[in-house]
Amino acid sequence: MRNIVLTVSYDGTRFCGWQKQDKAAAGKPVRTVQGELEQALHRIHHEPVAAIGSGRTDAGVHAAGQAVNFFSPIDSIPVQNYIPALNSTLPHDVRVISAAEADAGFHARFSATSRTYRYFLCGGRQAYAHEMPYVWQLRHLPDIANLNAMAACLHGELDCTTFSAAGDASVSKCRYIEKAVFYPERGNIVFEIAANAFLWKMVRSIVGSLVFFDRQKKDAAFFSEVLHARDRRLAGPTAPAHGLFLWKVEFNGERRH
Amino acid sequence: MRNIVLTVSYDGTRFCGWQKQDKAAAGKPVRTVQGELEQALHRIHHEPVAAIGSGRTDAGVHAAGQAVNFFSPIDSIPVQNYIPALNSTLPHDVRVISAAEADAGFHARFSATSRTYRYFLCGGRQAYAHEMPYVWQLRHLPDIANLNAMAACLHGELDCTTFSAAGDASVSKCRYIEKAVFYPERGNIVFEIAANAFLWKMVRSIVGSLVFFDRQKKDAAFFSEVLHARDRRLAGPTAPAHGLFLWKVEFNGERRH
Repeated sequence: MRNIVLTVSYDGTRFCGWQKQDKAAAGKPVRTVQGELEQALHRIHHEPVAAIGSGRTDAGVHAAGQAVNFFSPIDSIPVQNYIPALNSTLPHDVRVISAAEADAGFHARFSATSRTYRYFLCGGRQAYAHEMPYVWQLRHLPDIANLNAMAACLHGELDCTTFSAAGDASVSKCRYIEKAVFYPERGNIVFEIAANAFLWKMVRSIVGSLVFFDRQKKDAAFFSEVLHARDRRLAGPTAPAHGLFLWKVEFNGERRH
Repeated sequence: MRNIVLTVSYDGTRFCGWQKQDKAAAGKPVRTVQGELEQALHRIHHEPVAAIGSGRTDAGVHAAGQAVNFFSPIDSIPVQNYIPALNSTLPHDVRVISAAEADAGFHARFSATSRTYRYFLCGGRQAYAHEMPYVWQLRHLPDIANLNAMAACLHGELDCTTFSAAGDASVSKCRYIEKAVFYPERGNIVFEIAANAFLWKMVRSIVGSLVFFDRQKKDAAFFSEVLHARDRRLAGPTAPAHGLFLWKVEFNGERRH
C-alpha cells in the first residue's frame, strides 16, 4: 500500500466542517470535506479509502493547505496523476493542490509538527462582494500596532485556557505558539498564527478577543493579564468562522510537497 | 432631487446578470443585481427608485466597480450614509463601495466614457477552492508573451464584429479599445481591457479566442487576420462568465468617487 499525502484546499462556506459525521445521528446527510474526499477516493479506487486530515476545521472555516494522507492500493499510476483524477470527481469547493509519496509511517495528524492559520479582517473600508465570504468585515479600522503589541504576548509554551471553548476535551491546554502577527495586505489585515497545535476554536477566540480589546483601547499589559488568568470568561467574543483559513501544515519544518 | 452615483461590487455567481427582468415573462422571479439594488433603494426611500447601471453584465459575471446612479428624494442625509444604509439591507453578494453626489445631468450609462474589465485565468497550477468561482481554470499555462503580441492588435478604433455575439443588436460594431494587456498577478494571469464601450459578450469572446489561438500556436499575424475578417465564425470559443469582472467605469477620465 502506498501512503500518499495531499495538500487540499476547500471553501468552507457550504461545509459542516472537515470531519465526517454520522448521517443517522444527524438525521440527514451532512456535507463534510472528509466525506467528499472519501467519496472521491472510493470512486477512483473502487473500494473505501479513509482520508486522514492534519486536524479538524469547523463549519465555515476554509483551508488553503490542509494536509491529508491516505493509503492507496493502486501502485501503477504516478503520484501526480492523483491531482487531476481527484479534482475531476470532487466538487469545485474542494481542490487537491498537490500530491506526494510519503513514508509508510507518515500520519497527517500525528506527524504534523506545526499548523499555520490566517485570519482575514477588513476594516476601514467596505469589502468587495467577492471578498465577503472570506473576510470578517469590521466597522472600524483596528490599530495594527496595538494588535501586534498584544499579539506579542502569544509566544512560546502557553496555557491557552482563556481561549478554549466550552466543549474542549483536551487534557492539556498548553500549546507552543511560534508566531502571532498582524500585517496589512491588499486593503485587508491578516492575522497569521502558527503553533504546534491549537485548541478547539482557539484562533477565532484569540482574533475575536484582540479585535474586541483593541476597540476598547486595551493594551498589551491588559491582554497579558487576560491570557495568564486562564479563565475563558475573560475572553472577548469569538470571531466568525468565515474569516479563517487553515493555511499550511508542516512536518518537521517541511511542507512535504 | 439629488443625483447620487454609487460604486457597486457584486459576486455574479448567484445572479442572472445585472438587468432586472420581467418576472411574468420568465415564469418565476429572476434574481438580478439591479432588482436587489432597487429593492434596497425602495426600502430606504419608502418609494420606488430606479437604479441606472453603466452597462449590463451577463449572468455569472462579477463587478468590482459597476457605476450606478439614482435620484433620491431624501435631501437630509450625508451622501456617505447611503453606503451603510444600503449595505445593511442588501444581500452580501452586492456591496456598495462608495457614494458621491453627481450633477443633475449625470447618467451612469450615457456619461460613461470608458469601461475596464479584468478577466482572471489560472494556468499551470490548480486554483485554490476559494479562487474557483472567480478564475477560469486552464489545463495548461498559456504563453503570456504570445497572448500580449496578439492582444496588441486590439488597439484604437476597431470593427469588433469577429467578437460579437449572435444576438447582438448594436447598429455599429465599432469600439475604441484603449488597452488590452495580460499580466501575471499572484499566480494567476490577468487580462485587462478598457474601451469606450463593449459589444455583448465581446470580452469573453476575445479572451476565449486568444487562449484558444495561443494553445494552437497561432501568432499575432493570424489574430490580426481573424480580427479584420469581421466574421464571428472565425472567433474561438467564448470564455466562461465567472472569470470576468467589470472592474471600473470612468467618466471623462475620472472615476467620480
